[in-house]
Amino acid sequence: MTAHILFSAHASRWDLYEAPLKEALDAAGVDYVLATQMPPEQVDYIVYAPNSDVQDFTPFTQLKAVLNLWAGVEGVVGNRTLRVPLARMVDEEGLTQGMVEWVTGHVLRHHLGMDAHIVNPDHRWDPVAPPLSHERPVTILGMGALGRACARALRGLGFPVTGWSRSEKRVAHVRCLHGDEGLAQALRGAQIVVLLLPATPQTDSILNASSLNLLAPGAVVINPGRGPLLDDDALLQALDDGHVGHATLDVFRVEPLPQDHPFWAHPKVTVTPHIASETRPPSASRVIAENIRRGEAGLGFLHLVDRDAGY
Amino acid sequence: MTAHILFSAHASRWDLYEAPLKEALDAAGVDYVLATQMPPEQVDYIVYAPNSDVQDFTPFTQLKAVLNLWAGVEGVVGNRTLRVPLARMVDEEGLTQGMVEWVTGHVLRHHLGMDAHIVNPDHRWDPVAPPLSHERPVTILGMGALGRACARALRGLGFPVTGWSRSEKRVAHVRCLHGDEGLAQALRGAQIVVLLLPATPQTDSILNASSLNLLAPGAVVINPGRGPLLDDDALLQALDDGHVGHATLDVFRVEPLPQDHPFWAHPKVTVTPHIASETRPPSASRVIAENIRRGEAGLGFLHLVDRDAGY
Repeated sequence: MTAHILFSAHASRWDLYEAPLKEALDAAGVDYVLATQMPPEQVDYIVYAPNSDVQDFTPFTQLKAVLNLWAGVEGVVGNRTLRVPLARMVDEEGLTQGMVEWVTGHVLRHHLGMDAHIVNPDHRWDPVAPPLSHERPVTILGMGALGRACARALRGLGFPVTGWSRSEKRVAHVRCLHGDEGLAQALRGAQIVVLLLPATPQTDSILNASSLNLLAPGAVVINPGRGPLLDDDALLQALDDGHVGHATLDVFRVEPLPQDHPFWAHPKVTVTPHIASETRPPSASRVIAENIRRGEAGLGFLHLVDRDAGY
Repeated sequence: MTAHILFSAHASRWDLYEAPLKEALDAAGVDYVLATQMPPEQVDYIVYAPNSDVQDFTPFTQLKAVLNLWAGVEGVVGNRTLRVPLARMVDEEGLTQGMVEWVTGHVLRHHLGMDAHIVNPDHRWDPVAPPLSHERPVTILGMGALGRACARALRGLGFPVTGWSRSEKRVAHVRCLHGDEGLAQALRGAQIVVLLLPATPQTDSILNASSLNLLAPGAVVINPGRGPLLDDDALLQALDDGHVGHATLDVFRVEPLPQDHPFWAHPKVTVTPHIASETRPPSASRVIAENIRRGEAGLGFLHLVDRDAGY
C-alpha cells in the first residue's frame, strides 16, 4: 500500500523538508507519495505545523494520523475536527540537543555572572570568583523529554537540580516533585528557574506574583518553554523591585515580541528570538518517517499527544 | 612526630586558610604546628604561594616539601634554592570544577552567539537557531588535569573535542594529538580554541601569528590558562583583520590588566579578571593535608612538579 502524505506547513518549510523527508522515508522502506497538495479524501498522514492552512480536518476521511512538526501542540490539540491520533515532535537529536545547549549555556552565563564582563565600559578588574555549581540550586518546571535532558546535563555539571511536573516523574540524581504542593517546594529558594512546561490552561501564568515570590532573592528566570507560562507584568514588577535579578526569555505571548513591549528595553531582561531550540529537518524527518512506517505496519504511533491533558 | 608547617602566602590568604587547613589536618590525623612565622630550621613543610616573602629556601634545612597553593608553579619552579619536592595544587573539587564551569560556559556563550542578544540596542528579532554542538569543533591546548576535565565536559555536551599536549595523552572520546606536528593539526580548522597549558619557555606565545592563522575563519580564542601563552599583538592583528572573531581572556602577561592595554576597549575582546578558576580553601586544604599525611607516613607526595619540564 502506498502512504499518501500531505505536507501542510508554512511554504518556506517545504524547501527545508522535502529532501530530508524523502530520504528518511526511503530509508524507512515506506512506499509513499509526498506532496503539498492532494485531494483530502486520499490523505493517510498529514505532516503538520499548527500555523498551516489546514484548520478543518473533516474532509480528510481516510486520515490515519497527524504528525506535528513542532514539540508544542497547543495550536492543534483543541481542534475538535481532529479525530485521529496526533503525534508531537520529539526530536532528540536536533530539538532536544539544541535545548540542552541553550539552557546549559544560559544557566552557566548567569551562574558565572558573565554579563558584567561582556559589558564592562568602566574596565573594572574585580577578581571575585563565582561560587561553584553545587552551591547554585536550579529548578526546572517541566520534566518531559526536554526538561529531563536539561536536568541531566545540569546535574552532570554539578548543579543541584529540582524538577517539577504535574504528575510524578523519576530522574536519577534529580529531586523530583509534583503536584500543587510540590510546586511551591520546587520554587522555594531556587536561584535559577527554567520553564519547560507545555502551554495548557493549567500552566498559564504558572510563574506569577506569588510563585515568583518563592524564589531566592536575586533569582534568575529562564523561559525557553512557552510565552504564556509567565505573567509578564508580575515578572516586570519582580525585576523592578529587585526580587528577581534577571530574566532570559526566548518565547513570548506574542511573537515576534512587539517593539513596544517593555521586555525589549528592560536592563534586566535578555530577549532571544525563539531560537532556544528548533526542529532540525534531517533528524525530525527521521522521527516522522519512523511514525509513518509504524502506521503502515500496524504498530502504535510514537509520541502521541494526550488530548485531554493537552500535551 | 609533630609536623611543623609554615604558611607562607599573602597575609590575606591566612584568614581564608587557617580554619580549613586546621580542620583538614585534624581530619587527616596529622600531629602538627601550623603558623605564619617559625624558625626556618624547624620547618618541615611550607604551604606556599609564589608571591610570598620566602624566595630563598636555603635557611629551611629540615624542609621536606613545598606545597604550592596554586596550580601554576612558574613563579617557583626555577628557584635554584629549592632542593626538596615541590607539589602543585590539583584541587579537583574546587579549582578543576570551577575551570570546567567557566570554560563550558564561555564555549557555550560563543557557540550560541549569546552576545548578540545580551547587547541588542536595536531590538533585532532575527530567529536563526545556532548550529548544534556536533558541528562546532573545539580544540584544547593542554591535557593536564584541567584540560582533560574540560574536554570531558564539552564532549558530554556533544562538541567534537581535540586535545593537544606536549607528550602523548589518551582521553576517551577526545582526539588526542601531541608534539609539534600534532599542534598544527589540532589548530587547523578549530572554531573554538581553549588554552590550558602551563607557562613554560616552550609554550610562550604558542598562539602567535602563524598558529592563529590555522584556525577556522572567525574562530574564538579562550584563554583561562596563562597570559604568556598568547602573543597579544598577533591576536589583536587577527581580530582586526577578522580572521579571529572574538577572544575571551582571563589571564594576562601583566595582571591586573593595565588600563591602557588595547584588550580593554577592543569590541572583540572580553576580559575576565583572573576568575576562571580559583583554589577554594576547603578543598585545597584537604589536598595539602593529604600530602602532609603522606609525607609523615613516608609515602610519596601527590602532584609533584617535574622541575625540568617546568610543570
